[in-house]
Amino acid sequence: MPFVLPEPKIEKWDRATTEPLADYGVFKVVRYGMRDPAGAPRRPVHCFECPDWCNVIARTPSGEIVMIWQYRFGTDSMTLEVPGGVIDPAEEPIAAARRELREESGYEADRFELLSVVEPNPALQGNRCYTFLAHGARLAGETAFDDLEECETVLVPERALGEVIDSGRITHALVVSALETYARRALR
Amino acid sequence: MPFVLPEPKIEKWDRATTEPLADYGVFKVVRYGMRDPAGAPRRPVHCFECPDWCNVIARTPSGEIVMIWQYRFGTDSMTLEVPGGVIDPAEEPIAAARRELREESGYEADRFELLSVVEPNPALQGNRCYTFLAHGARLAGETAFDDLEECETVLVPERALGEVIDSGRITHALVVSALETYARRALR
Repeated sequence: MPFVLPEPKIEKWDRATTEPLADYGVFKVVRYGMRDPAGAPRRPVHCFECPDWCNVIARTPSGEIVMIWQYRFGTDSMTLEVPGGVIDPAEEPIAAARRELREESGYEADRFELLSVVEPNPALQGNRCYTFLAHGARLAGETAFDDLEECETVLVPERALGEVIDSGRITHALVVSALETYARRALR
Repeated sequence: MPFVLPEPKIEKWDRATTEPLADYGVFKVVRYGMRDPAGAPRRPVHCFECPDWCNVIARTPSGEIVMIWQYRFGTDSMTLEVPGGVIDPAEEPIAAARRELREESGYEADRFELLSVVEPNPALQGNRCYTFLAHGARLAGETAFDDLEECETVLVPERALGEVIDSGRITHALVVSALETYARRALR
């Protein structure tokens, strides 16, 4: 019998006020005045606002996934990720995925399909991250990094994704979540 | 033949300066002055600093996972998550997992083991999220919410996790990543 998820009996809170506090470029900090379901005021909370993001799982015809090494400012370390980035204003998520794949790895692909949409951190930020599968990936030319970016492409056989994750070499939660969902649906 | 991941040939950048800009309680904003591998100064970047976080996948003896509905400020919505939260200063990750499970769901468990460690967002923040498996979970008493928290427990059969994720009802990337890794290792 299929599992039917019970809806919550508790109710959502509401934002009584939204106050922009600071704009740091890649994210803005906002303060929300909160009201609980009974209408009672609660102490304000701080969150950030970011644009939506995208990731691309690009698969070559021989079953390899296009990944990149990249230096990351938050962790001050090199991380192994799939290509991805910020979706520009008025840009469709699928167009951003195609652009980021080309810029960061030099790869293009025949067909893009949406694999999953997750929320990077509902507690602190409201944006979404779209992951696309790109089929028929092939090296098409040079990379085109922005001024704070430098990437190195690595092809990882899709059958090895689980062991590379378990070895602790893929740590970015948005990349792990995308690759694990891909592996569950496509590789079993 | 096992896949051997090639190490990156590109080198990491360095933080030349670290400047605290603002303290918002749950996170701090910092500015890093950057230097590329050639030693050249680059424009500064903004990141946030947060404490480490933990998540708990608590399994009942009959194969159900303890999940919670919770209102989330960042997305202004109810989300379905596993218990978890901020690891207090000087608290061991496993102790935080045990505490958060008890506070948010009222459940306790016999044995906790580390499942995975991910970085929530290496691009913007340096913290880690530890996920523990808790075996032999059982309802032990009342919940104990903090002043901005209200949760409702839902038991989800572990065999249904994939379909609940695919239905779009579990959206928190840290929860999806933890549950997918659990399902790959434990349920195949």
